[in-house]
Amino acid sequence: MIGIFDSGVGGLTVVKEIKKELPDVPIIYFGDTARLPYGNKSAETIQKFSVEIVDFLENKGCKTIVIACNSASALAADYLREKYSNLEIYDVVSSGAEAAAESTEKKKVGVIGTAATINSGVYEKKISEIDLEIKVFTKACPLFVPLVEENWIKRPETKKIARTYLRELKLNKIDTLLLGCTHYPLLEKVISGVMGRRTRVIASGSKLAGKLHEKFRDQAGKGKDKYYVSDLTPHFKTLASRILGKNTEIEKAEI
Amino acid sequence: MIGIFDSGVGGLTVVKEIKKELPDVPIIYFGDTARLPYGNKSAETIQKFSVEIVDFLENKGCKTIVIACNSASALAADYLREKYSNLEIYDVVSSGAEAAAESTEKKKVGVIGTAATINSGVYEKKISEIDLEIKVFTKACPLFVPLVEENWIKRPETKKIARTYLRELKLNKIDTLLLGCTHYPLLEKVISGVMGRRTRVIASGSKLAGKLHEKFRDQAGKGKDKYYVSDLTPHFKTLASRILGKNTEIEKAEI
Repeated sequence: MIGIFDSGVGGLTVVKEIKKELPDVPIIYFGDTARLPYGNKSAETIQKFSVEIVDFLENKGCKTIVIACNSASALAADYLREKYSNLEIYDVVSSGAEAAAESTEKKKVGVIGTAATINSGVYEKKISEIDLEIKVFTKACPLFVPLVEENWIKRPETKKIARTYLRELKLNKIDTLLLGCTHYPLLEKVISGVMGRRTRVIASGSKLAGKLHEKFRDQAGKGKDKYYVSDLTPHFKTLASRILGKNTEIEKAEI
Repeated sequence: MIGIFDSGVGGLTVVKEIKKELPDVPIIYFGDTARLPYGNKSAETIQKFSVEIVDFLENKGCKTIVIACNSASALAADYLREKYSNLEIYDVVSSGAEAAAESTEKKKVGVIGTAATINSGVYEKKISEIDLEIKVFTKACPLFVPLVEENWIKRPETKKIARTYLRELKLNKIDTLLLGCTHYPLLEKVISGVMGRRTRVIASGSKLAGKLHEKFRDQAGKGKDKYYVSDLTPHFKTLASRILGKNTEIEKAEI
C-alpha cells in the first residue's frame, strides 16, 4: 500500500502517473484541502502539517510514502525521513532534480514552483549534487496555482501571465524546464507554448512513477484505492475528476 | 478590548479603519495565516476554524469580536453568535450590506468576493432584508486575493483580469460596487478605473468602524495592540506593513 499526500488536489497528477505504471498496487491519497496551499507558508508549519498526514497514512497501513507536493518535499522531506526511519519516503523534488539533470544537454535547467519551493533553494542543491556543471535558473510563479484552481487554463490572461513569469528563463536559453509544482502539468500547453520548441518541459513527478515501478512491479496489493481530504468542497471534486479523468469517491477525514 | 480576526492579512484593512475611529481602544488581531485562504473552503471547515480563533480571543479577554473576513462572516457569523451568546459579534458582511443599501440610488448593487462568500448568497439575503427593491448582482473573483498577495497591484495583467471579472457587472449598470473581501481595497484603484466614475466603490468594512465608534467612543482601554498569526512568514510582515503603513510587531500563536 502506497500512501501519497499533497496540500490539495495537485498531487493527483502524480497519482495518475503512478497508477499508469502500477495499476495493481493500491494507494491511499490524502489532500490537505482545509489548509492548502502550502506554497506560501513557513517550513515549520509545513513540517507540522506533514507529520500529521504521515501519521494518518501510517495508521492506514502505508509503509511507503510519496510526498506529491513540491513545497512539502522541499521543506519537510529530510525532516520526515529522520522522524520516520521505519518508512520509505519518496519525494517529487529528488525525482524531479534527477529528471532535469538527465534531460539537459546544454546544462542549463529552469525550475518553476511556488514561493516556498523556490525560496528553499532545494532544486539548485539537489541538481548540483548530481552534476555541478548544470546551471539552474529558478522563478517562483505564485499565480499559476490559483489560475489552475480557477480553471483559466486556456485564457489569454493566463498566457500573458506565463509570458511575464517565464521571460527571464527564456532569455537564459535553458533547454529543460522543470515544473516544480504538481499543479503546473495542467498548464503544460501554455508553458510549452511560451517557452518554444527548443525547451523540454518535464513534470517533477515523471521519474518518480518509474522508480516506484522498479520497486513494486510484479506486486499486486489487496484493497481499493482510497482518497481522503481534510475539507470536501464541490470544487475539489470537479478538479479531481478533471485530473483523474473519472469520478472518484472522496472521503473527508479529520487529522 | 476588541478582538479582530481574519484568514490572513486582509483584515488589517479593517483594523486600519477601526484604529482611525478609535485610536485609544486596544485591539487584538488574529490572522490564520497557516490555513489561509478561507475563500475556497467549506462552511463546516470555516466554522471550525472560526471557533478556534474566537476561543483564543476570548481567552485573551475580548468581549467584542469583529469578523474581518468576508468568507467567515458569510459562513460562520450566525453560527458564532449562537454559540457565543456572551460575546458581541460584529461582521463585515452585515455592515457591508448596510453600506451598499445606503449608497445605491438606482437600486442596483454589485458585490464581488471570494467563491465561498459569493456562493453563500449572503449578500443578496442581507441586502434584500434592508430593501427588497434593490437588485444585487454578484461575481466571484478568486484571482484578486493571489494578485494582491503577489503585489501585482499596478500590473497590466491585473487590469486585464479585472476587466474580465467586472464586465458583466458593468453591463448591468450598477451604481454601487461593494468590495466583499478585505483584500480588495488594495485593488481599489484598478477596480474603480475599470468600473468608471459613475460607480461608487465601497469597502465592506467601511461602516463597521463607524458602528464601533458609536459603541466605544469616549472609552480608552488599557494595553497595547497585539497582532497574532498562526504562521509567520516574511511575506506576511511585508504585506502587514504595506497595509498598516508602519512596522508592526507580530507574534506567532498556536491555536
